[in-house]
Amino acid sequence: MSTPKPSRQPSRISLGRYPERGHYDFETIAAILDDGLVCYVGTASENQPIVIPAIYGRIDRRLYVHGSSVARWLKDSQSPSRVCVTVSLLDALVLARSAYQHTLNYRSVVVIAEAQAVVERDEKIEALRAIVEHVCPGRWNDVRHPTDAELRATLVLRVPIAKASAKVRTGPPSDFESDLARTTWAGTIPLHSLRGTPVDDPALAEGIGVPSYCREQRRCKTFIS
Amino acid sequence: MSTPKPSRQPSRISLGRYPERGHYDFETIAAILDDGLVCYVGTASENQPIVIPAIYGRIDRRLYVHGSSVARWLKDSQSPSRVCVTVSLLDALVLARSAYQHTLNYRSVVVIAEAQAVVERDEKIEALRAIVEHVCPGRWNDVRHPTDAELRATLVLRVPIAKASAKVRTGPPSDFESDLARTTWAGTIPLHSLRGTPVDDPALAEGIGVPSYCREQRRCKTFIS
Repeated sequence: MSTPKPSRQPSRISLGRYPERGHYDFETIAAILDDGLVCYVGTASENQPIVIPAIYGRIDRRLYVHGSSVARWLKDSQSPSRVCVTVSLLDALVLARSAYQHTLNYRSVVVIAEAQAVVERDEKIEALRAIVEHVCPGRWNDVRHPTDAELRATLVLRVPIAKASAKVRTGPPSDFESDLARTTWAGTIPLHSLRGTPVDDPALAEGIGVPSYCREQRRCKTFIS
Repeated sequence: MSTPKPSRQPSRISLGRYPERGHYDFETIAAILDDGLVCYVGTASENQPIVIPAIYGRIDRRLYVHGSSVARWLKDSQSPSRVCVTVSLLDALVLARSAYQHTLNYRSVVVIAEAQAVVERDEKIEALRAIVEHVCPGRWNDVRHPTDAELRATLVLRVPIAKASAKVRTGPPSDFESDLARTTWAGTIPLHSLRGTPVDDPALAEGIGVPSYCREQRRCKTFIS
């Protein structure tokens, strides 16, 4: 008998409600993670959960999170620490004819993992690069890179994307047949996340313009003033 | 001696890093909660945290959360359940001259509470009304209200805003003096959450227009097409 090949898909977190909205393939999960800006990191100590927002980056099947507040809640925990990292993108309000059927269109990912602090210098720098590039692609090569002292002062967590699920809702409201005769307006209201016009640091020296990568960003659908 | 008057402020969750960004007054906390759309509810069982996004509403010093996914993680827990509810509003990317000083401008609230399922009918209806009105002010009076069967099928959690803190960052990057001579552009890129033009449900009967409250919403700074 041949040894079973390990699955390339993350293992499933089963979804309780609306299982038809569930997605477990890595590509769907990665696309949602790449489209987000901030994740919500849950930790727990003596069954008291704490949820802290944090910026993040992804390299292949690893998420990297860094954040002072996250650090604080994790330093009391054993290493590795059990975490839950959640990202959600809100696409539309879904206004149905009944209060009961109101919902949102969204794309969300939940990752459950044993997170570990990154200690190796090269991995830490790569992780910080991934985080900066995730927030603002093109930025890393333009800035001063971390010193050894800054690296020591920074906690970076590695979160393997091994046990994860995505949940996606799209489309119009799902009203009950019996509500369709109502004269209530029903439909969706799209939600957009946009980046505005860059604002110079007041300390900026004269003659330094906004770099093109700040004007042409992945998650920036439109610039508005 | 007179009995000390109980404080009207929520008790503090102390902030580890950047304590100068902390705010503990109820008005600041309530304003951030009212400006958000989705919260992240953390629960824990056997020290495994789970973080689920959910819509919410606020009535005075109580948050109400309803959601099928939330329900699932809570149904195994004792009642009341320890939760952490986090809301964050992202205002700007803060692009500094060093990688180390990159951050976001944000307003966030963390509430730690014992959440309890709402069982009383009137409170449940008021909570659902607060949730619908939070997402889309003006909507509740236009829609069919929940039936008894729908109320029974809906789990609503009451989360007292008793132990909470807000954290706010504003302003330009905080670069080190020694980095100011760099020729790197530095500044902020504002982030905007906007609501687009309402989209009719394909099943909408002819002659039903978009109601004015869908066009004039609190959190809708601008309509875009």
